[in-house]
Amino acid sequence: MSKVRLGIIGMGNMGSGHLRNYIKGKMPEIEITAIADLVPARLEAALSQVAGGRKNNPEITVPECFASGEELIKKGKVDAVLVAVPHYDHPKYVIMALDHRLHAMSEKPAGVYTLQVREMIAAADRHPDLVFGMMFNQRTNCVYRKMREIIKSGELGAIKRTSWIITDWYRSQYYYDSGEWRATWAGEGGGVLLNQCPHNLDLWQWICGMPKTIDVKMHFGKWHDIEVEDDVTAYCEYENGATGTFITTTGDYPGTNRFEIVCEGGTLVSDKKSLTLSKLNMTIDEYSKTNRTATFGHPECVTSEVETDGLNEQHPGVLNAFAGAILRGEKLVADGREGINGLLISNAMHLSAWTGKTVEIPFDEKQYYDELMKHAASSRLKKGSSTKIGNTEGTY
Amino acid sequence: MSKVRLGIIGMGNMGSGHLRNYIKGKMPEIEITAIADLVPARLEAALSQVAGGRKNNPEITVPECFASGEELIKKGKVDAVLVAVPHYDHPKYVIMALDHRLHAMSEKPAGVYTLQVREMIAAADRHPDLVFGMMFNQRTNCVYRKMREIIKSGELGAIKRTSWIITDWYRSQYYYDSGEWRATWAGEGGGVLLNQCPHNLDLWQWICGMPKTIDVKMHFGKWHDIEVEDDVTAYCEYENGATGTFITTTGDYPGTNRFEIVCEGGTLVSDKKSLTLSKLNMTIDEYSKTNRTATFGHPECVTSEVETDGLNEQHPGVLNAFAGAILRGEKLVADGREGINGLLISNAMHLSAWTGKTVEIPFDEKQYYDELMKHAASSRLKKGSSTKIGNTEGTY
Repeated sequence: MSKVRLGIIGMGNMGSGHLRNYIKGKMPEIEITAIADLVPARLEAALSQVAGGRKNNPEITVPECFASGEELIKKGKVDAVLVAVPHYDHPKYVIMALDHRLHAMSEKPAGVYTLQVREMIAAADRHPDLVFGMMFNQRTNCVYRKMREIIKSGELGAIKRTSWIITDWYRSQYYYDSGEWRATWAGEGGGVLLNQCPHNLDLWQWICGMPKTIDVKMHFGKWHDIEVEDDVTAYCEYENGATGTFITTTGDYPGTNRFEIVCEGGTLVSDKKSLTLSKLNMTIDEYSKTNRTATFGHPECVTSEVETDGLNEQHPGVLNAFAGAILRGEKLVADGREGINGLLISNAMHLSAWTGKTVEIPFDEKQYYDELMKHAASSRLKKGSSTKIGNTEGTY
Repeated sequence: MSKVRLGIIGMGNMGSGHLRNYIKGKMPEIEITAIADLVPARLEAALSQVAGGRKNNPEITVPECFASGEELIKKGKVDAVLVAVPHYDHPKYVIMALDHRLHAMSEKPAGVYTLQVREMIAAADRHPDLVFGMMFNQRTNCVYRKMREIIKSGELGAIKRTSWIITDWYRSQYYYDSGEWRATWAGEGGGVLLNQCPHNLDLWQWICGMPKTIDVKMHFGKWHDIEVEDDVTAYCEYENGATGTFITTTGDYPGTNRFEIVCEGGTLVSDKKSLTLSKLNMTIDEYSKTNRTATFGHPECVTSEVETDGLNEQHPGVLNAFAGAILRGEKLVADGREGINGLLISNAMHLSAWTGKTVEIPFDEKQYYDELMKHAASSRLKKGSSTKIGNTEGTY
C-alpha cells in the first residue's frame, strides 16, 4: 500500500482536529476513509468540513460514516484506526481494532485506570505485527526532545531535583459545560490530570524517569463547578533519592510552563519555548568535597541558551510517524505501550489524594480501580449541558 | 545625639561584615564604639580591620573590645546594640540590651524557637520607647518591595497560589565545617531554614501573608555531612484557600530564585532580578463565569516588565533606618516583633517533618520546643572543626 487508510473513531474536539489537519494536507501518507460517532450531527459537520476542503483539493477522500466505532472497525475500509473517544473507551476500541487486525493509534490518556491499559497492552502483545501508537504529540516538541537527549546522554550526571509548574491549561466553566462526560468521575475519570496533563506526565517520566513515591495535595472543583480535580500539587521521590514537584491547574491564566531539572553537573530549565543550560565545571558533590579554602565558594558555571532543531510537528508528526511505521517499519513517536507510564503517575496521584497517604509505585491497581468506581458511582449528572465541539488549535 | 553609638555583639561572618560597611562609610549616622566576642582573635582581627580603614579616614572610631556581650551591654559606651551571635542567643542579648535601656537590632532569625522570641517581644513591649529592629535586609530589595506594594494595593485581587523556588543558597562542606555551631541541632537549631531562608520566609509572609497550614518533605544531611536539613519542599494553604510551595536547598548550584504569585487578576513573577506582571482585563473567575461562547477562551492579558526604583540598600539600609528610628523616630525596615512570623513558618516546617503531619499555625509551641531539645540533646559534636570567618559579601 502507498497510503494508510485511517478511520477516526470519535469526531469530538480531537477527532475533528485530526480531520482538519488531513484536509490541510499535513498527512501525505494517510487517507481518512472512515469516521464514526454516536452523534449524527458530528458526522454531518465532519462531512461538510471535507466538502469545504474538496473545493481546493478534489483528491481529499470523502470518508464513509459509521454510527459506532464497532461498526467502523468491522465494516470500514481501513488499515488503521485512530481512537478519539472519551478516555474510558480508549482501550476498548484499541483492543477491538487490534483483534480485527487493524493498526491502532490511541488518543491520550491511554485509559483512565491502568488495569484496562494492561489489557490493551496484552492485546498489542497478541499482535506484535500490528502497529500500536499513543498520541503523545508533545514528544515531537524540539524543547522536550532536546531535554531528553541531554539528560539521557548523562553529560549532567544523575538527577537531583525536578520541578514542573505547568499551569497554562486554563479552562473556563464553558469548556467544562461543553460535554456531558467532561470533568465527571463517570464520564472522564478525572480532571486536569486525565485531560490536560497526560502530555506533561508522559514527558516528565520520558525525560526524568518514573518516580518511586508520590504525595499529592489535590483540590476538586476548586476553580470550577466540576466534581473532579482542577488543582494539583504533587511531590515525588525517585529511586536514586532525587525529589520532584509537579504543580498544575486549569484555574490560572496565563499560567506558567516552567520545567527545571537539576542534575549533579548542571541545571536545565525550559520556560515556555526557551531552554537554558547551566553547566558546572565539575559535579557539585566533587566541588563540595574538594573545596578547602572558600567559605562561600562554588564551582564554575556557564549558562547558555540551548539550540534545538526548532521542529515541533505535533499531531500530524505523530500520525506521519504512525504511517511510516505501518508502511516501512519506521519508529513511532510513542509506542502505545508507553502510555501506561504517565497514567501510573496520574493514578498514583489520585490514590494519594483519596487515601491521604504516600503512594509507592507500583501500587495496588485494583484498589485504585475500586476507589475510582466508588467515585464514578456517586458521579452527578450534568443536566442541561449539551455537547459542543470546540476548535482545539493551539490549545495543546 | 547626632550619631548612634553602636556595639556589635558577635564578630563572626555577619558582625565583621557590618564593621566593614561602617569602615566603608556606608552608615553616616552610626559610630561603632564597641565590639564583643568570646574569641580574642576575632576582636584582634576586627581592630586591624579598623586600623586599615583609619589610614584613609582617621575619623573612624576605634571600638572598645569586650570579652562578652554581657560586658558590652553593661559597660560599653553605646546607645544601641547589634546582636550577631549564633541564632539561639539572639533573644538573650536583645532582652538584656533592652532591659539595660539600649536600643537593639537582632540578626535574623529572631531566634531558633518561637517561645524565646515571645520573651524577646515581651521585653520590647516593656520598653516601648526603645527601638527594636530585625535585620531583614532583603526587605530593602526593590523587587520584593515592589511585589509587596502591588499585592497589598489589591490591584490583582486575592492570591490564589504562591510558589517560591529558592535554591540559590549553595554551601559546600567547607562552609559547614567552618564553625562548630554550624548545622547542628544544639548549635544552630536547624539548617537552611534557620540560616539561609529566614530572609525568604520573612519575605514570603511579608508579601503574601501567613499560611494557615504547612506540610513539608524535609531531608537532613542529604547533600552534606551535617545533621540538620539541607533540602526542603513545603506545601502550604492560606486562610482564603490559596496554596503555596516553597522549595529550598543548600545543595544546588547555581540554583534558582523564582517567586511566583498568582492572583485573581494577574500573576507576578520575580526571577532573580527581573519582575514580570501579567495582568488580566478582568478576574479569572469573572471570565470563567461570563464566557458563553469560547470553548478554549480566556481573558485578555498584558504581560510587561515592572519598573522598580532600583534601590537595594541591604544591611547598611537596615542600620541607617535603625539610626533614623532612634534619632528621629523614623520607620524601621522591619520592626523586631515581625521576626516571629518567618520563624513560625520555619518551626511549623520542622514540626511537620518531625511528626510527619500537617501543621496548623498557630501550633503547639511547647511541642516544637520539646522536639527541638530532643534533637539538640542527641546533637553530635563537630570535633576537629575550627571556627573561621568568611567574607560574606554578595552571599545574602
